[in-house]
Amino acid sequence: MQAAIVGGTGDQGSGLAARLAAAGVSVLLGSREAAHAREVVTALRGRHGDLPIEPATNADAIAQSDLVLLTVPFAHAAATVEANAASFRSGSVLVDVTVPVAFEKGVPRLVDLPEGSASEHLRRRLPAHVALAAAFKTLPAAVLAALDQPLDCDELVCGDSASARARAVELAARIPGLRPLEAGGLEAARAIERMTVLAITLNKRYRSRSARFRVVGV
Amino acid sequence: MQAAIVGGTGDQGSGLAARLAAAGVSVLLGSREAAHAREVVTALRGRHGDLPIEPATNADAIAQSDLVLLTVPFAHAAATVEANAASFRSGSVLVDVTVPVAFEKGVPRLVDLPEGSASEHLRRRLPAHVALAAAFKTLPAAVLAALDQPLDCDELVCGDSASARARAVELAARIPGLRPLEAGGLEAARAIERMTVLAITLNKRYRSRSARFRVVGV
Repeated sequence: MQAAIVGGTGDQGSGLAARLAAAGVSVLLGSREAAHAREVVTALRGRHGDLPIEPATNADAIAQSDLVLLTVPFAHAAATVEANAASFRSGSVLVDVTVPVAFEKGVPRLVDLPEGSASEHLRRRLPAHVALAAAFKTLPAAVLAALDQPLDCDELVCGDSASARARAVELAARIPGLRPLEAGGLEAARAIERMTVLAITLNKRYRSRSARFRVVGV
Repeated sequence: MQAAIVGGTGDQGSGLAARLAAAGVSVLLGSREAAHAREVVTALRGRHGDLPIEPATNADAIAQSDLVLLTVPFAHAAATVEANAASFRSGSVLVDVTVPVAFEKGVPRLVDLPEGSASEHLRRRLPAHVALAAAFKTLPAAVLAALDQPLDCDELVCGDSASARARAVELAARIPGLRPLEAGGLEAARAIERMTVLAITLNKRYRSRSARFRVVGV
């Protein structure tokens, strides 16, 4: 299995890259600057050993993969998708990992978007031939990066395309300790993104960096 | 400890009444019709033994308690609060349990409210001297009713009043297997109510009636 990570040099992207590569997924770690991608891949290898991660520009990562994770900061998400619209392979799947969170006087809040969620916002800006799923939005970067720490949680996957959801579920299922759950259409991203904000709130309240979710009873 | 449950004859209300009473809380179970409240209390005692639950009208339940849980269907929530506005004790706490969910072709969706959540909607309609917290929104009625089934989950409590949050936390902490977590201001109800819709979606997808949440890492 192979996946590209656009914005792979950030905390969420590099953590996902490490977790996926440790699970045997071949990862293309993309950045706007190829040199920055190379630095991060070198650092990940220094920390975790010889993982199957290769550096790339975002454009090359998109062009060379059928399965692309978007982990740039939300503020750059739409521009990144639009700038690289022509690079997506026909029938590829984009997995949106972004969460539009802003801090007001230290309090995390979801950025109001007319479409209701970052994923719905991006759907409008993505070529129609690219299928979209949302996943990996609720995993804390601090936990992702600590490969020796069990994830021990669930991953909520949503999307209007059943095949895109299935690809995201298949990818998430590769990561030990992570149970993917299908949470319905893309509109469920409104709940999932708010859960991430809620996790940040809980982290502040309970002095943690690792709040995440498990669904009991399913 | 004593609490009133307005709309206590519904599934969520009667389940909470049973759980709280089984934990030693004196419960006033309110209904619009006193006769209906009596029927439900008789049924609960028949099923669970001699629990400390007494029937009342909603108005009497509100007038006789400093801590009032609102478990009516969301469609009746604002009218119930407004009709009983004069009955609230000075400085009492209302714990909003409602979730504005509607089904479109079998798909659960959150009802759009200008205030963003049911709890914020109700805050505007509640006398200023009544403090408001939101809690118990994500507990499935089917699990609440099965007293022999461990809840084994967390309860997200939010509100702009620290003392109201503390009262709701104190109440939730009485129930075995339920860990209350403070999730910030009342705006967090936007996340929590959507989590309930998400749990309903997961129940449908995975043929369960008991999806609920645990926060890992705090």
